[in-house]
Amino acid sequence: MPVNYATPAPEALFPVAGVRLGTAEAGIRKKNRRDLTLIEFAPGSMAAGVFTQNRCCAAPVTVCREHLAVDSRIRALVINTGIANAATGEQGMRAARDTCAAVAKLLGCAAADVLPFSTGVILEHLPVERLIAGLPAAQADLAADHWHAAAHAIMTTDTVAKAASRRVVSVDSQFTVTGISKGAGMIRPNMATMLGFVATDAGIAPALLQKLAKDAADASFNCITVDGDTSTNDSFVVIATGASGCMIDSEASPHWPALRDAVTGVARELAQAIVRDGEGATKFITVRVDGGGTAAECRQVAYAIGHSPLVKTAFFASDPNLGRILAAIGYAGIADLDAAGVRVWLGSGDEEVLVSEHGGRAAGYREEDGSRIMKNAEITVRIDLGRGAAGATVWTCDFSYDYVKINADYRS
Amino acid sequence: MPVNYATPAPEALFPVAGVRLGTAEAGIRKKNRRDLTLIEFAPGSMAAGVFTQNRCCAAPVTVCREHLAVDSRIRALVINTGIANAATGEQGMRAARDTCAAVAKLLGCAAADVLPFSTGVILEHLPVERLIAGLPAAQADLAADHWHAAAHAIMTTDTVAKAASRRVVSVDSQFTVTGISKGAGMIRPNMATMLGFVATDAGIAPALLQKLAKDAADASFNCITVDGDTSTNDSFVVIATGASGCMIDSEASPHWPALRDAVTGVARELAQAIVRDGEGATKFITVRVDGGGTAAECRQVAYAIGHSPLVKTAFFASDPNLGRILAAIGYAGIADLDAAGVRVWLGSGDEEVLVSEHGGRAAGYREEDGSRIMKNAEITVRIDLGRGAAGATVWTCDFSYDYVKINADYRS
Repeated sequence: MPVNYATPAPEALFPVAGVRLGTAEAGIRKKNRRDLTLIEFAPGSMAAGVFTQNRCCAAPVTVCREHLAVDSRIRALVINTGIANAATGEQGMRAARDTCAAVAKLLGCAAADVLPFSTGVILEHLPVERLIAGLPAAQADLAADHWHAAAHAIMTTDTVAKAASRRVVSVDSQFTVTGISKGAGMIRPNMATMLGFVATDAGIAPALLQKLAKDAADASFNCITVDGDTSTNDSFVVIATGASGCMIDSEASPHWPALRDAVTGVARELAQAIVRDGEGATKFITVRVDGGGTAAECRQVAYAIGHSPLVKTAFFASDPNLGRILAAIGYAGIADLDAAGVRVWLGSGDEEVLVSEHGGRAAGYREEDGSRIMKNAEITVRIDLGRGAAGATVWTCDFSYDYVKINADYRS
Repeated sequence: MPVNYATPAPEALFPVAGVRLGTAEAGIRKKNRRDLTLIEFAPGSMAAGVFTQNRCCAAPVTVCREHLAVDSRIRALVINTGIANAATGEQGMRAARDTCAAVAKLLGCAAADVLPFSTGVILEHLPVERLIAGLPAAQADLAADHWHAAAHAIMTTDTVAKAASRRVVSVDSQFTVTGISKGAGMIRPNMATMLGFVATDAGIAPALLQKLAKDAADASFNCITVDGDTSTNDSFVVIATGASGCMIDSEASPHWPALRDAVTGVARELAQAIVRDGEGATKFITVRVDGGGTAAECRQVAYAIGHSPLVKTAFFASDPNLGRILAAIGYAGIADLDAAGVRVWLGSGDEEVLVSEHGGRAAGYREEDGSRIMKNAEITVRIDLGRGAAGATVWTCDFSYDYVKINADYRS
C-alpha cells in the first residue's frame, strides 16, 4: 500500500495532442500480464532524456543515448517489463536494436527515431522474438486516452500505477503535460529514475528541451531514494510534440515559466509517487537540509539520512531514536563540519519541534513530542548545518519487514 | 545466532602480563546487567588508538584523543554500555572527564592516563553518578583472567561476546596478544569499529605502536560493514604493557613480524566476529575485489556490494539474483569503468563458479550452481575489475527480517 498516493482516474490524465499509447501481453516473463507498451508520437516531435550513471547500464540505455545523439526527433518509445536487458552483453545490444528496427518498420520511421526501455530482472536475456511478436497488438491498441493503461503496463514491483497530468494556460496559449513513471525498488536515481516519461504538446527547441529534462530530473527523480541502489536502467525522457501550436524556442519565451513549472511539477509528482510506493514503505519522509556551504554537501547529508537503515527502521517503528540522525549527519562526509552548529527539527503537518542543537539534545525537546510526530505517515526532518546559505531536499521512505520480504521473494 | 562464531572459552583467552580486568553492575540503563568495565594496566604501559571519523563523535572519543595527545602512557580503560554519551554537548564532555578523574583517583594516576569509552543510545545523557558509584565494585573485581567477563560486559545488541587471543614465540622471546570487541549494528567503521581493545605484554615504542594500531585497524575493523552506518563511538585501542620483557622499538626488530601478525590476526578475528554477529545476520559474506587501478576503488566496489540492501536481501533469500551485484559494481563510482572487462565469481568452500564476464552472464553459468552456493552460510563474491593490480576485501553479512525487527525494537 503506497503512502497517501492513488493513481489519478483515467479522465484526470489529459491526452497530449500528437501522442497515442498502446499496450499488449507479449508473455516476456509472466503470463496474463500487459508487459509491452508502445507510445507513438506525431511527426515533428522532439525528445530529450537523462539516463542512469550506472557503469553497468542496460543495453536499451546505451541505444537510447545513441539514438538521441543522432538528433532529437522521435516517433516512438517501446517499453517492456519482466527483463531489464542489463548485463546481457552483445546479445542484449542486438535485442534492443532489433526491437527498435521492428517498431520502425511498423510505424514507417527510422530506427533512430525509436527509444527502447526495459525494466525487470538483470542478467537474464530478453526474449526479443516474443517482444517483437507482441508489437502489432500494441500498435492496434494505440489511442490518445490510454495513459492510464500504459502507467499500469510499465509496473514491476510497483503496487500502484503512477501518473500525473496538467493543463496549462499561458498567456494566449494552452498546452498539456502528462507523464507516467514506474519504480519501487533499486531506487537511488543518479540523473533519472527507473522509468519516467513526460510528454507535452507544446513545441520546444531541442537545446531547451535538453535543459528542461535535466532541470526537471534534478528537481524530482534526482531527489529521491528508496534503498540507495542506483539502477542499471534509469531513464527519464521528456517529449514535445508541438501539436498544440504553442512553440517555445528559448527561456525568453513568455510560455517558458509555465512550461518549466508544469513539467517539473509533473516530474516531481511522479518521483514522489515512486517513494510513496517504495518497497514496503509505510511512511513518506522529506529530508530538508539548509545552511550548507554548497548544495552538494546538503545533498550528501540528506542522502546519508535517507540511506541509513538505522534511521529508516526507526521511522518504521515510530521510535524517535533521533541520535541515529545525528550519527548520519556526522558520517555524511563533510570533513570540517562543526557538530555544535547543527540544528535538527522533526515535523509533520503544522507541528515542528527542535530536537537537537549545540551538539546535543535541545533543552525543550520532550520524547513524547518526538513519538507523536513519528507516528504520522508524512514526516519532515529539517536540518540547519549552520555554515552557509545552500539547501537541498531528498524524499525517502521507511524500511520495514515488507522491504525484506519483497526483496527476498522477488523472482521466486 | 551468529554465523559460525562462538566465544572462546575463558581458558583460551590468555592473560596478558600487566593487565587486569574488572566488571560491575552500575545500573546505567538496565538492572541486573554488568554494564561497567575497568581495565587496568601496569605502570609503563603505552597505548595507541584509532577513532571514528564521524563528525558528531561521542564525548569519550574526544577525551580519548585529548588524553592520547598528552602522551602514550596509559593506566586504565573505563567502558560503559547503555548510553553512548554521543550528541550530549558540554554536559557529555563533563561526564566523560569526571569519569576519568574518578578512575584516576581510585588507581592513583593522572586523569590523562585513563581512556573512557561508551556505547549504547545516542542523544541521551550518561548517568555519571551511577557510573562513578559503580567503579569501586569494578576495581574490587580486577583480575588477570577476567577477559571473558569483560567481553560479555561490553556487549549491547551483540548476541555473543567477542574475544581472541594468541601466545607468540618469536626468536628467543615470547609474548601474548589478547583482545575483545563489541558491535552488531551501526557498523561501517571508518578508522575503527564500535569498540575494540587489544593488549599485549610486548613492549612497543609509541610511534611504532601508533603505526601498528592503524595498520591493524585497516586490515580488520576498516574492512567490515553491517549496515553502512559509521558509529559516533568507534574506537580501537592497542595497549602494550611491556611486562613480558620483549621490547620492540622499530620495524627492524626481529620480533616485529610476529607481533604485527599477531595483533592484526587478533584484530581481524574480532572484526569478523562483529560481522558474524551482525544484527539479524544469517550469512557471512566475503567480498574480494581484484584487478583495480587502486585499492581505494576496489574498496568502493566492495562496499557498494556490502551496503546494497538488494544484494543483502538476495543473500538472505539464497536467491542468485546476481544482476544486483553487477548493478552495485556499476554505481560504485568508478567513472571510467568498462563493464565488459569485469568478471564476477560466486564461491563457498572449495567451489567457485564464474557468473559474469564480457558484460553479461558467463556462458557456462547455470542458475542451479548459483542457488546451491547461495544456500551456504559462508559465501565469497570475487570480482576482477580487469583494469589494474590492486585489490581489497570487505566482510559483510546478509539482511534479514530480524535486522528490521532488532532495529525497530531497540530501545523499546
